[in-house]
Amino acid sequence: MWFETSVTNRLKITYPIIQAGMAGGVTTPELIAKVSNAGGLGSLGAGYMNPGQMREAIQKVKLLTSNPFSINVFIPEGDVTSPVKIDKANAAMRRYRDELGLSDPETEQISASVLQEEFKQKLQILIEEEVPICSFTFGIPSNEEIQLLKDQGLTLIGTATTVNEALLNEERGMDLVVMQGSEAGGHRGTFTGEFDHSLIGTVSLIPQTVDRVSIPVIAAGGIMDGRGILAALALGAGGVQMGTAFVTSKESGANPLHKSLIMDSTEDQVIVTSKFSGKPARGIHNQFMKEMAVVSIEDLPGYPMLNSLTKDIRGEAAKQHRPEFMSLWSGQSPRLSGEKSAQEIVIQCVKQVERSLRNLT
Amino acid sequence: MWFETSVTNRLKITYPIIQAGMAGGVTTPELIAKVSNAGGLGSLGAGYMNPGQMREAIQKVKLLTSNPFSINVFIPEGDVTSPVKIDKANAAMRRYRDELGLSDPETEQISASVLQEEFKQKLQILIEEEVPICSFTFGIPSNEEIQLLKDQGLTLIGTATTVNEALLNEERGMDLVVMQGSEAGGHRGTFTGEFDHSLIGTVSLIPQTVDRVSIPVIAAGGIMDGRGILAALALGAGGVQMGTAFVTSKESGANPLHKSLIMDSTEDQVIVTSKFSGKPARGIHNQFMKEMAVVSIEDLPGYPMLNSLTKDIRGEAAKQHRPEFMSLWSGQSPRLSGEKSAQEIVIQCVKQVERSLRNLT
Repeated sequence: MWFETSVTNRLKITYPIIQAGMAGGVTTPELIAKVSNAGGLGSLGAGYMNPGQMREAIQKVKLLTSNPFSINVFIPEGDVTSPVKIDKANAAMRRYRDELGLSDPETEQISASVLQEEFKQKLQILIEEEVPICSFTFGIPSNEEIQLLKDQGLTLIGTATTVNEALLNEERGMDLVVMQGSEAGGHRGTFTGEFDHSLIGTVSLIPQTVDRVSIPVIAAGGIMDGRGILAALALGAGGVQMGTAFVTSKESGANPLHKSLIMDSTEDQVIVTSKFSGKPARGIHNQFMKEMAVVSIEDLPGYPMLNSLTKDIRGEAAKQHRPEFMSLWSGQSPRLSGEKSAQEIVIQCVKQVERSLRNLT
Repeated sequence: MWFETSVTNRLKITYPIIQAGMAGGVTTPELIAKVSNAGGLGSLGAGYMNPGQMREAIQKVKLLTSNPFSINVFIPEGDVTSPVKIDKANAAMRRYRDELGLSDPETEQISASVLQEEFKQKLQILIEEEVPICSFTFGIPSNEEIQLLKDQGLTLIGTATTVNEALLNEERGMDLVVMQGSEAGGHRGTFTGEFDHSLIGTVSLIPQTVDRVSIPVIAAGGIMDGRGILAALALGAGGVQMGTAFVTSKESGANPLHKSLIMDSTEDQVIVTSKFSGKPARGIHNQFMKEMAVVSIEDLPGYPMLNSLTKDIRGEAAKQHRPEFMSLWSGQSPRLSGEKSAQEIVIQCVKQVERSLRNLT
């Protein structure tokens, strides 16, 4: 059967459909559990959570499903930011803070060692809470961390945007790898090389990767329905990861304005910007992205400092219903989005794959 | 059967595999005829040919195949270029001309009316030579031109990079439309809106288009083998157009250095530049692209003047085996390329689709 793949075998799930572990409140325990209960793999986006928040969310998920689920965490990165760059960023942000009635925030340096310590605490919680699957974005954990998690029986999923990054994930011991095509919404997972050399379309990325790596490959980017799933399997992937399709789902915790703007957008309105966080990410083009496009990225702090500096603006804009200043992450297939339940999404995907296969044979 | 699609029906071909009508000498009559004789659709890239050259090539193709084939032409565009921009371009090019031992060329303005006249002559030749199929890039011909060709029984194929462009092609009477995904090599066919909003991955572009247009859709971009073809059909396309796969074929007229560099490249070496021609196009990153990236496109002439101004450099670089100054067009799947015959490519694609379908069912 089409759904008996390297990915469903390895993850012990029924259908090769993974709900992406999107950070920022989208992945409610209800969403995760509904996807896992429908036979897919729900994932918690714990990238921006502190250890306590993450533990609480995991415990809620466990009350709602006994099926496998996954936790996504970010590989920590942080460095001292020059005060000049912080000042330049605050100057560039002033017009948005003025519009929203915000004053300049007090900016604290982000400590790499604190982030690293938090990351270790999170991994410890994954073990304590007997989480079955963990995925990583923005890099690969240390050998010691990988060994610790694998010794405790966790299955590990890496994220890559090029064949080279997939090979690194395999060499370092990841059990599966998500290949993030250029169509994908939200942050690019690129962790080696230049980002504009790492925007590879899914149709190119998947077959070139499966020819080179032996671990199961999960296709991500632009996949919203059974057509995309069957395409990914045809290209050689063992499954798919879907993000935007679940952002607009009934159980999603995304801001309702964000949901409705995805559903109203077209594919040519969704472009990549680094100006919200310091890392490239794909979202619906708005006033913030347009105006900030003229500010040189070299003048601004990098990730995660810029992310921290725009947090008040993004948060307040959401409260005031001002989408022009929000980060409206979306992949390149917004026309395929709809406000279905997570269960409906999984069921419809499965039916559509089966219908398409019948039509082709 | 999987290969009985809207595209094979409409074009009266056996397999839904179109060899792209790439300009610049790649599409030899032998290549075109071999593809058509194998059951696909061979296409002549007549974009840069004058009417006489095009007629001669068509007559050669007709001696080699009695199956359908297609001619690709460019919608003419041209305008008076400011002498200041021409001087700036020549200044930017000086270092390459010095390296190659070239002097600055005498630059003549490109006349829009001359190009338009040539275009009309080319359409007349298509009719006189009883060409069955014609495809267009960089826009849509006038209503009169479309009517003239359709009255003579030609089947017309448009090129689009967004859903909106596909709708325009359908409204204006194109019989089929090639959807050029962001993975595609060579020039972007974008003719409305901003180019960086029109780099849509194939996985996103195809399903969003087929949901909106009724004419048959041909997927292009990154497709090199049966995996890509089956993926395109799963996404809802009726067929595929493959470019890079045929650039490295035995019958291709591409420079041998260009062929071998594609076969040695990886997906993250292939990026988009506007600096060779004034229009964005995807090719292997080299010294010219790297250095010219810092020159503002606003300072340079647009297409087709910049194309004309870099012609001596590209030509002489090819002669002197200096790939660092050549336009090395390639899609994002160079790792999938190989030096097979055109017939082998078609046959292997067909076998691979059939094998994949068996594996999925």
